Amino acid sequence: MTAIKVGVIGYGYWGPNLTRNFYELPTSELVAVADQKEEQLKRAKARYPGVELTTDYRELFKMGLDAVVVSTPPKTHFAVAKDCLLHGLHVLVEKPITLNSRDAEELIQIASDKGLTLMVGHTFEYNSAVLAMKKYIESKELGDLYYIDTARLNLGLFQRDSNVLWDLAPHDISILLYLLGEDPISVSAQGIPCVIPGVYDVAYLSLIFPHNLTAYVHVSWLDPCKVRRVTLVGSRKMAVYNDMESEGKIKIYDKGVVTPDYTNGFGEFQYNYRSGDITIPNIRYAEPLLQECSHFIESIVNHTEPRSSGRAGLRVVKILEAAQRSIAKSSTHELIQW
Amino acid sequence: MTAIKVGVIGYGYWGPNLTRNFYELPTSELVAVADQKEEQLKRAKARYPGVELTTDYRELFKMGLDAVVVSTPPKTHFAVAKDCLLHGLHVLVEKPITLNSRDAEELIQIASDKGLTLMVGHTFEYNSAVLAMKKYIESKELGDLYYIDTARLNLGLFQRDSNVLWDLAPHDISILLYLLGEDPISVSAQGIPCVIPGVYDVAYLSLIFPHNLTAYVHVSWLDPCKVRRVTLVGSRKMAVYNDMESEGKIKIYDKGVVTPDYTNGFGEFQYNYRSGDITIPNIRYAEPLLQECSHFIESIVNHTEPRSSGRAGLRVVKILEAAQRSIAKSSTHELIQW
Amino acid sequence: MTAIKVGVIGYGYWGPNLTRNFYELPTSELVAVADQKEEQLKRAKARYPGVELTTDYRELFKMGLDAVVVSTPPKTHFAVAKDCLLHGLHVLVEKPITLNSRDAEELIQIASDKGLTLMVGHTFEYNSAVLAMKKYIESKELGDLYYIDTARLNLGLFQRDSNVLWDLAPHDISILLYLLGEDPISVSAQGIPCVIPGVYDVAYLSLIFPHNLTAYVHVSWLDPCKVRRVTLVGSRKMAVYNDMESEGKIKIYDKGVVTPDYTNGFGEFQYNYRSGDITIPNIRYAEPLLQECSHFIESIVNHTEPRSSGRAGLRVVKILEAAQRSIAKSSTHELIQW
Amino acid sequence: MTAIKVGVIGYGYWGPNLTRNFYELPTSELVAVADQKEEQLKRAKARYPGVELTTDYRELFKMGLDAVVVSTPPKTHFAVAKDCLLHGLHVLVEKPITLNSRDAEELIQIASDKGLTLMVGHTFEYNSAVLAMKKYIESKELGDLYYIDTARLNLGLFQRDSNVLWDLAPHDISILLYLLGEDPISVSAQGIPCVIPGVYDVAYLSLIFPHNLTAYVHVSWLDPCKVRRVTLVGSRKMAVYNDMESEGKIKIYDKGVVTPDYTNGFGEFQYNYRSGDITIPNIRYAEPLLQECSHFIESIVNHTEPRSSGRAGLRVVKILEAAQRSIAKSSTHELIQW
Repeated sequence: MTAIKVGVIGYGYWGPNLTRNFYELPTSELVAVADQKEEQLKRAKARYPGVELTTDYRELFKMGLDAVVVSTPPKTHFAVAKDCLLHGLHVLVEKPITLNSRDAEELIQIASDKGLTLMVGHTFEYNSAVLAMKKYIESKELGDLYYIDTARLNLGLFQRDSNVLWDLAPHDISILLYLLGEDPISVSAQGIPCVIPGVYDVAYLSLIFPHNLTAYVHVSWLDPCKVRRVTLVGSRKMAVYNDMESEGKIKIYDKGVVTPDYTNGFGEFQYNYRSGDITIPNIRYAEPLLQECSHFIESIVNHTEPRSSGRAGLRVVKILEAAQRSIAKSSTHELIQW
Repeated sequence: MTAIKVGVIGYGYWGPNLTRNFYELPTSELVAVADQKEEQLKRAKARYPGVELTTDYRELFKMGLDAVVVSTPPKTHFAVAKDCLLHGLHVLVEKPITLNSRDAEELIQIASDKGLTLMVGHTFEYNSAVLAMKKYIESKELGDLYYIDTARLNLGLFQRDSNVLWDLAPHDISILLYLLGEDPISVSAQGIPCVIPGVYDVAYLSLIFPHNLTAYVHVSWLDPCKVRRVTLVGSRKMAVYNDMESEGKIKIYDKGVVTPDYTNGFGEFQYNYRSGDITIPNIRYAEPLLQECSHFIESIVNHTEPRSSGRAGLRVVKILEAAQRSIAKSSTHELIQW
Repeated sequence: MTAIKVGVIGYGYWGPNLTRNFYELPTSELVAVADQKEEQLKRAKARYPGVELTTDYRELFKMGLDAVVVSTPPKTHFAVAKDCLLHGLHVLVEKPITLNSRDAEELIQIASDKGLTLMVGHTFEYNSAVLAMKKYIESKELGDLYYIDTARLNLGLFQRDSNVLWDLAPHDISILLYLLGEDPISVSAQGIPCVIPGVYDVAYLSLIFPHNLTAYVHVSWLDPCKVRRVTLVGSRKMAVYNDMESEGKIKIYDKGVVTPDYTNGFGEFQYNYRSGDITIPNIRYAEPLLQECSHFIESIVNHTEPRSSGRAGLRVVKILEAAQRSIAKSSTHELIQW
Repeated sequence: MTAIKVGVIGYGYWGPNLTRNFYELPTSELVAVADQKEEQLKRAKARYPGVELTTDYRELFKMGLDAVVVSTPPKTHFAVAKDCLLHGLHVLVEKPITLNSRDAEELIQIASDKGLTLMVGHTFEYNSAVLAMKKYIESKELGDLYYIDTARLNLGLFQRDSNVLWDLAPHDISILLYLLGEDPISVSAQGIPCVIPGVYDVAYLSLIFPHNLTAYVHVSWLDPCKVRRVTLVGSRKMAVYNDMESEGKIKIYDKGVVTPDYTNGFGEFQYNYRSGDITIPNIRYAEPLLQECSHFIESIVNHTEPRSSGRAGLRVVKILEAAQRSIAKSSTHELIQW
């Protein structure tokens, strides 16, 4: 099998990581890197002297590529990805896939029409800890899920033309969709623009999934502590995936509420808490981005729908659109009667 | 000065701690303990053989007491506290002061009419860490506050006739009111009843204070990890009070956003993050409950309004009432357009 | 059964804890507290108004007691305990039982001659975590033990007439003797007197047990971090008892070295590490001191040898004596050939 | 200035990291990689397609190199480094520089005779945290040092022809020599060979420096927890460098013993502990290995003695030789008189 020829568009913050993986994968060949800034290209050249460099990504269309990676700023995702698809290239685009659902739908349509692979960089869907959490849910080891709570906080990269919803929440939303395998019905969001007027840097979301399962998502660019956490609370057990924990990222708590089958003298059920062992499973960690890049190549070669397909990217965008509508409304607060 | 004669009504979960402190304070004399359950009285007798015991709190009215502590279940707070005030006794009542604001107002009125001290057991207002946090705010060491985030989570004591709002949130709300010295304008709450229909065991509140300062409060009876945390995010520094941290409960982060006084070539301000030292101040911890009990006695002796006065208790109840109205509404969610 | 009548001699640092437990135990009756300092007696009186108080412990001999607790400074242990035994009282004496083995042997002999219970306050032998660790060793869950490492560090109570060996190491040595059920053959100790000439405030011990099992003990009065840790390294698993850990004091690591039964081409065994799950067992903690006090009463009533008998105390003292001889020698260092 | 032409000998565990840094440094040019194993060379080729590859390091002598990096197994350090020096190449050799002091002295002599730079890879001497610790000592911020304690533990890479002393202790010893700027007078070592007869996998060292300053070093290949820690205990403050801490690797504890200038009534000084704030300084971390590699190039260009010179490597080896003599002796233990 010949290697898939890949070009990278955008060598800024995340692009170098994608580039490295496609360079090292035996199934892909890194052919070119495009970036508008000469200094970024210089950095790429230092690492990959044999790779073609250009400040105009359209040069890539003349290089006989099979696929491109679009890791440019979000507002350019749609135009660049569309251009690449129209030139017959498979596309892996960073999250969020686009800034509105209409654009995402158009990309999906084009890819479908042309039989091309369209994938979005939801890295966490390729993370061993998330895969393990999905297994705990599906095997019912946790019992029925009561709720999910996630937090992704720290001093973040400030982006004037984005906000914390569109920057950080795609990670948590893609995790939730992947873990649960279904779409939320509704979402509410609250938040505040602390530093720049109009740019939300702190947000709290709640997503209601079918069967009344609720997930809470807290994202912040403005917190002193780095937090990366997903908590699953089930009727039998609870699980926490804490990405900052060095000894073991997942803890399974054999804790829960004991619902008795008898009542007390007043006809009321007596509830009790149960605390058992905590287990830190030994999980083999492979670099999630390597798994993602490898999966992209496999999806191209096998003509299969990727896990984080364009459709998955669209679902995240639709949820973000609804969250954006919600966050702008202040009507949700009850006035206090002083 | 003769010691203030104190009786304790309710020797269940928290009553023994109050009893111990009034027993040991040199300014008070523990005279009697009342509890409906004989077994609780037996426990009291084992520790305080000289103390009067009764299953009927009204017996206390014949004992020449000066003051009582009401640490009975919340739904009885109003009736018991009112009865005691009407019998001329100063009252320290556990939080929440009552289950509705009308009742709290009536207690305040009676105490005022009779010149009695009415105080509510907002323990955290007597906690050294909270006092230190208030100092950091008032001295502007943190700059201007952007927002506050609090969390109080763990496997909690299940209460069928309460919910997590009324059980745990009074702590965080009283901390917020004390720290900020002003009342919130509005509140919204979301939550879920996981185990018992209608009993919220997980809740997320947001409170809007004057000058658009927002505080977020997360309370849960159903979380695998014990969390007790208050985060203050300011324009100059940030502070975290983590009650579970053994090495030092408060951390001051010299972190923030640098707002430049110049713009880039496109007329835009360039924001940057700043990370400096972290300081863990050495704080002398006195038992907060001892401070609270001692303050109650002083307020009686000096005829001064206690820090956590009946009025402070009323403010918390009004906020809880508004939160309760809010949590019942589901209209705050945006439907997602699938 | 009538309760055992107990007197406490020494109401300083640890005495109040012992007093509280004997006061609350249903099987014992706290009759008297003796202390040379009036202010300590005042503190005792405030808590236990009905108890007899005296500055001369010999007054206790007239009170019809069954047993005494000796929690005076170590240098007085022998004289006071001997006096009490000679007056026919059962004795629980704080650790170390005496300051030399001859004295300990004399106490054991007297107790034996008079049929009295002599017990030493090795609290950790009554600690649920230590009991669990012993079970892991005996059930061979850890495989064969390779070695044990313990650390007990922090800013400690400075004692001019003691040193860190005699103050802190008795805890770790009694834990080791209890865990292993056998006596060490030899010991070496190194240490330094940092603050006061001649008073060792930092020490490192190594104890060689039968079958070449070695235990390392690190004790310090002069460390910035509070450490209370016992590590067991076995051929199958490893276990850590960390008393400072809030989520769970014991962790079982399914880690080890895999010894293969085949060799490589050069006739050498290929060793590999194995990393499996980590388990934090749910252990029910009872206050160790309550268990200890209760066990003392039971030993008296049942005429049985207590777990931490005088003999156990003697074994610890003999090891400390050898360690003291070792720490004074500097001959163990190799000169470096510069 | 033309870049220094560098060849790497040994592309196993650590070699790839050295290679990457010399590849990326603007002051050096990576010309060749040598390794006996073809598969290692394949890995090198995948990353650096333009680099010369060979299984025989002597091929490097024909390539016009200026310098080589020797990251082969320790037992080959001497022969390879000597050969390279004799061929006129500057040499950076991994730690330990050689397996005995005679060999190290010979390398130093050759390098001196030929005017070549000889440097050993004591990475921690280029670590920002170690540099900060050195500053705290030299500025007397900690007061006078009482003692130093270090620990470097975890499940390590098992090496049949080495032991934990020669594998891990060079890091700690080089840190100590660099921090203190002077040589220890003597050393003692204890340890056990747990898994393979004769191969020590756990060791405890004590090093006595001038002015009676003692340093304790604990190294282990067989501990369930990964520990990387250096504790400095001074008369004014204490400092801990914990490399596993994510929030801040250094903590300065404003703690100490207060030595009074007055005595109590019995002519004795009353000592007290003092506990103040804890500070986590914000330290800019640069990759230590990058600093090391850059320093090697600078030393060559400027004809200056590198910080971790051959002489520094020799000092570490002399200490290890004395420790090895000490660890083999069992005479240091006191028999316990049962």
